[in-house]
Amino acid sequence: MTTLGIIGATGYTGVELYRLAARHPHLHIIFATSEQYHGQQLSEVFPHIDPRKDIPLCATSDIGDEKPDVVFFCTPDGIAMQQAPAFLDRGVRVIDVSPDFRFDTPEAYKTWYKKEHTAPAFMKSAVYGLPELNRQKIRDARLVGNPGCYPTSVVLGVAPLLEQDFIAPGSIIVDAKSGVSGAGRGLKLRTLYVEVNDSIAPYGIGHTHRHVGEMEQELGRFSATKPFVVFSPHLTPMSRGILSTIYVRLTQDLGSKDLMDVYTRRYASEPFVRVLHKGLPETRFVTHTNFCDVRIDRVEGTDLAIITSAIDNLVKGAAGQALQNLNVMFGFPEEAGLV
Amino acid sequence: MTTLGIIGATGYTGVELYRLAARHPHLHIIFATSEQYHGQQLSEVFPHIDPRKDIPLCATSDIGDEKPDVVFFCTPDGIAMQQAPAFLDRGVRVIDVSPDFRFDTPEAYKTWYKKEHTAPAFMKSAVYGLPELNRQKIRDARLVGNPGCYPTSVVLGVAPLLEQDFIAPGSIIVDAKSGVSGAGRGLKLRTLYVEVNDSIAPYGIGHTHRHVGEMEQELGRFSATKPFVVFSPHLTPMSRGILSTIYVRLTQDLGSKDLMDVYTRRYASEPFVRVLHKGLPETRFVTHTNFCDVRIDRVEGTDLAIITSAIDNLVKGAAGQALQNLNVMFGFPEEAGLV
Amino acid sequence: MTTLGIIGATGYTGVELYRLAARHPHLHIIFATSEQYHGQQLSEVFPHIDPRKDIPLCATSDIGDEKPDVVFFCTPDGIAMQQAPAFLDRGVRVIDVSPDFRFDTPEAYKTWYKKEHTAPAFMKSAVYGLPELNRQKIRDARLVGNPGCYPTSVVLGVAPLLEQDFIAPGSIIVDAKSGVSGAGRGLKLRTLYVEVNDSIAPYGIGHTHRHVGEMEQELGRFSATKPFVVFSPHLTPMSRGILSTIYVRLTQDLGSKDLMDVYTRRYASEPFVRVLHKGLPETRFVTHTNFCDVRIDRVEGTDLAIITSAIDNLVKGAAGQALQNLNVMFGFPEEAGLV
Amino acid sequence: MTTLGIIGATGYTGVELYRLAARHPHLHIIFATSEQYHGQQLSEVFPHIDPRKDIPLCATSDIGDEKPDVVFFCTPDGIAMQQAPAFLDRGVRVIDVSPDFRFDTPEAYKTWYKKEHTAPAFMKSAVYGLPELNRQKIRDARLVGNPGCYPTSVVLGVAPLLEQDFIAPGSIIVDAKSGVSGAGRGLKLRTLYVEVNDSIAPYGIGHTHRHVGEMEQELGRFSATKPFVVFSPHLTPMSRGILSTIYVRLTQDLGSKDLMDVYTRRYASEPFVRVLHKGLPETRFVTHTNFCDVRIDRVEGTDLAIITSAIDNLVKGAAGQALQNLNVMFGFPEEAGLV
Repeated sequence: MTTLGIIGATGYTGVELYRLAARHPHLHIIFATSEQYHGQQLSEVFPHIDPRKDIPLCATSDIGDEKPDVVFFCTPDGIAMQQAPAFLDRGVRVIDVSPDFRFDTPEAYKTWYKKEHTAPAFMKSAVYGLPELNRQKIRDARLVGNPGCYPTSVVLGVAPLLEQDFIAPGSIIVDAKSGVSGAGRGLKLRTLYVEVNDSIAPYGIGHTHRHVGEMEQELGRFSATKPFVVFSPHLTPMSRGILSTIYVRLTQDLGSKDLMDVYTRRYASEPFVRVLHKGLPETRFVTHTNFCDVRIDRVEGTDLAIITSAIDNLVKGAAGQALQNLNVMFGFPEEAGLV
Repeated sequence: MTTLGIIGATGYTGVELYRLAARHPHLHIIFATSEQYHGQQLSEVFPHIDPRKDIPLCATSDIGDEKPDVVFFCTPDGIAMQQAPAFLDRGVRVIDVSPDFRFDTPEAYKTWYKKEHTAPAFMKSAVYGLPELNRQKIRDARLVGNPGCYPTSVVLGVAPLLEQDFIAPGSIIVDAKSGVSGAGRGLKLRTLYVEVNDSIAPYGIGHTHRHVGEMEQELGRFSATKPFVVFSPHLTPMSRGILSTIYVRLTQDLGSKDLMDVYTRRYASEPFVRVLHKGLPETRFVTHTNFCDVRIDRVEGTDLAIITSAIDNLVKGAAGQALQNLNVMFGFPEEAGLV
Repeated sequence: MTTLGIIGATGYTGVELYRLAARHPHLHIIFATSEQYHGQQLSEVFPHIDPRKDIPLCATSDIGDEKPDVVFFCTPDGIAMQQAPAFLDRGVRVIDVSPDFRFDTPEAYKTWYKKEHTAPAFMKSAVYGLPELNRQKIRDARLVGNPGCYPTSVVLGVAPLLEQDFIAPGSIIVDAKSGVSGAGRGLKLRTLYVEVNDSIAPYGIGHTHRHVGEMEQELGRFSATKPFVVFSPHLTPMSRGILSTIYVRLTQDLGSKDLMDVYTRRYASEPFVRVLHKGLPETRFVTHTNFCDVRIDRVEGTDLAIITSAIDNLVKGAAGQALQNLNVMFGFPEEAGLV
Repeated sequence: MTTLGIIGATGYTGVELYRLAARHPHLHIIFATSEQYHGQQLSEVFPHIDPRKDIPLCATSDIGDEKPDVVFFCTPDGIAMQQAPAFLDRGVRVIDVSPDFRFDTPEAYKTWYKKEHTAPAFMKSAVYGLPELNRQKIRDARLVGNPGCYPTSVVLGVAPLLEQDFIAPGSIIVDAKSGVSGAGRGLKLRTLYVEVNDSIAPYGIGHTHRHVGEMEQELGRFSATKPFVVFSPHLTPMSRGILSTIYVRLTQDLGSKDLMDVYTRRYASEPFVRVLHKGLPETRFVTHTNFCDVRIDRVEGTDLAIITSAIDNLVKGAAGQALQNLNVMFGFPEEAGLV
């Protein structure tokens, strides 16, 4: 059995990772931390956890020199960059589900997260954990920066066209709709039931959301010129799910069928990307799964195409993708524990 | 125009009261306080407020010796008992939408709210503001204790039978379902969207919820022996509304029609109680209205009857009823501003 | 009192119109029809209707030669074009809340609604009922085509820039999110609770939705060249509300403040458009009101601006706007019955 | 591999059973029928189905003489009683998730389902499929009547007390709250999103719901006198889940701890019943699981106790329990495919 530890097991992502990992046939969880709830059983905080799979929560300071094969960080930004190096130094592989190791440079991190990166030396060796685009590098990575939820849906949606130069990189408009778990389990007026229920709300629109930098960096790997992403996230009255409706300008006259072929070919052997030939992606079809559903439609009479892409923000957008990365890193079947 | 002030205008009840009062044909609002948001316009906190009806929020300490005709307290328990006396002493009538002046004795208040009452002298003169049962006394009251949301739905549902000795006072079982606004606008993990959505949850069941004392006191006015209310509230995934499903034991063999007749007669001239002869109460039929919908069904083959009663917890259960009380106190048509 | 009749009072729009009209100080409703429920009281179908304002439902065939001052059609497409002429011929003014009289030509109607128009002679005199843009013509209109819900939010959002040539008419991308009442009260698998809840779904994206023709026609009045609207509607888990997030390409280098000034000036005297200088439009702020909230944000570093526009699809997007039109047509204060 | 077929795979229960069975380590699905969608792939009707686990839908008439080890009926009442005998006659075991084989007598079936039973000879050998109470009989059963959703939550909640004579069988009050999937996937006005959203509604209260007969029959096995269940179901704005709040009268003076001990002992070795010692059952804790969470609280000062019991109506209340029964019948670990 591969052993693992979870730092930050009582946020929405942390407990989802725990739940999935506990069902994985080849994994054994040896610790789960919570600064808020340590001393309690995980099932006291989340009664849905099967008692047969329960675990006591400890503080990070109690881990001592435990040496699992891999540690996951499901923490707010700024924690992993401080704590991951010690694990890496003693040979533990790290999958950081927080944003700390997604960026190439400390400057980029500072631009979008407004703080100095404290472990710039480790950024270089970190691999961006999107298996569909980076599988080879992930295999041998010691440190994986697990993608953000919005970027997962957008990069999987846009990369197939961008890498073929079929779209203009400067004109990517992403209108995204996210479930409320994406805002975390912290106490905020904005995520109270009464404030969210029965209403949809845009926020941080334009070029300001912290995921913009991540999207542009990753899409930039497929483009000679730096992409520009206009990004409009919307808080949507649902617990989970992200739908990205993406407007791109084609550089060549390709019809819907040609465009769909690009996606079909690109993702032919991918276990977790479904190219929908009938119907459009909806978040309910991917909820509680590790799938990304994607589709493209040419708008006749224009140079525009509309890509629609749906994921579960807590699974393919976080915990599920983290396990998919683990499967790649440790040589398990990529679907292990995820179907 | 009758002038009024609102203490605590930025909770869910406070802003609902503001919205309703601003539409009332005979009222003029001269101040609205918020300890959290003073200095801002009300519309900055609640953008749904019509800008033509906006008001600057002030701190309570800024009111000075303003002397409106009536002041409403839409505050947590413990505030009105401290601040209402000064208003009353200078001739301002008070409608307390908080629980501070609902009880007959300081002992009862302490039993259920776990704190000493600081204005026991004023409790005596306070009138319980349920117009359907107390209209005469409300007319001349200087101080009204506006009923709690659950008690409104329960007392209106049970009183018609109890006052005729048709049911056993010791066997009243109330299974109530409330929308989330009843839990207030404070930051609590329990009322985050993701914790509430798509799930129903009982809480504080049995004989422990603070509204039990209020129900038993008010129902006791109609009964020779003290009633005993078993009360099971449930947090329900909806923003507003209370449905009480009430199980009572009949002392006489009355059929559904006889029982309905009791209600029809009792509430014949009431502007805000609808006795439903077709279909059962549902919260959606009373949302955003001051109605209480009520119905009774005998369970054949038993001595049980089931009363169902629905209100909007923020309107008939709080702000709307407060305005109904104002209408009674100031001689306006009882429906003014409420239809 | 101005007298009115409602054809089709038991759809979501019809009952909303009834509810609003019954509260209007200058109106008297003399009939309300329902082919499905005639013979019942309206309150039997919709128990939320105040019994003091109830009305018996009749079949359209029972109206006879009743001659109210105005008749509203809240019917599916294809009914008003058949029945409105008889009313108009006997001097009754008509406000058609269905799509039958929104188009300039029978050809355009056929293109988008896939049927022959049976009253082309009346199309010419019909006025498109968007008071903010057409107030003068509405005043004297005998026949008003009340705008569709999506077009209301889009035309109010885009017209101020288009009429000044500040944006390119060929590059208007509308990403719209609608509550489920927009799909009507008919029985469709797609609008069952379980199919909608906790999920967001795009549908009919690109250039296919029937409201595209209406938007392009109306926006075309402000532009030398025919506009092209790319339109992506999304079914959103909420009962009411439309949010349109609109991406436009500026033809001049205007900053956010300049752009906001355009809107502020354009709508300065409008009673039902709020230009939001703080925060973005959210549907909850306009629900159950006749407001359209609008805002524009320039995306720095690009020629793009993002317009966000929110309405309640059943009020400003249908019944409320119909009453606003009535107020204009009959010389009432424009806000009568709507605040 | 054990082979199985599903009759009626495109209702909410049918597709849930398919999804669970497709993940079960020892099962192979050889057919899935749908009278409405035959000719399509299951994933065309439910795009959330993993394409690797897809199946073509056939009409029941196309099955021919296929002979799987077991057939499940996920059909409306009245189908299984006609079609199950042919399967049984050729040696196929049947798990009927419909109500047709839950009753002991054709008279009882007729009383509650208002139709003649057409296979009374098979009723005798049918076993009521609640493993916690009937495990031995299920093991050898050829025909299992899988319990209804409400009865599962109620019988598991009440049986431990009734079998010890600790409660009065004539005074069982069940106030139940159900998610909307319990009403099925058929087209009904009552289950449209807009009719359900943001509201709670009682229906069929008293002694009329068809599940009452099933509850009384099964509870009757534990009681010398026939139990009487007062049952008030409520349609709740959530997709899945049932919470039953049950009021019982104790015949002995037992405290909360004593009562909890009864449950703890009774269910000590049950894999799918959790007796909650901390906190009350909520539907979100059991959603998408086969657990029944249960708890009991004595109401001090009365002879009442309140049992709260929560399940997922589609899992423990239908498809999950059906698989649990299969596991018992075929000698698999009882949790196989369910954790």
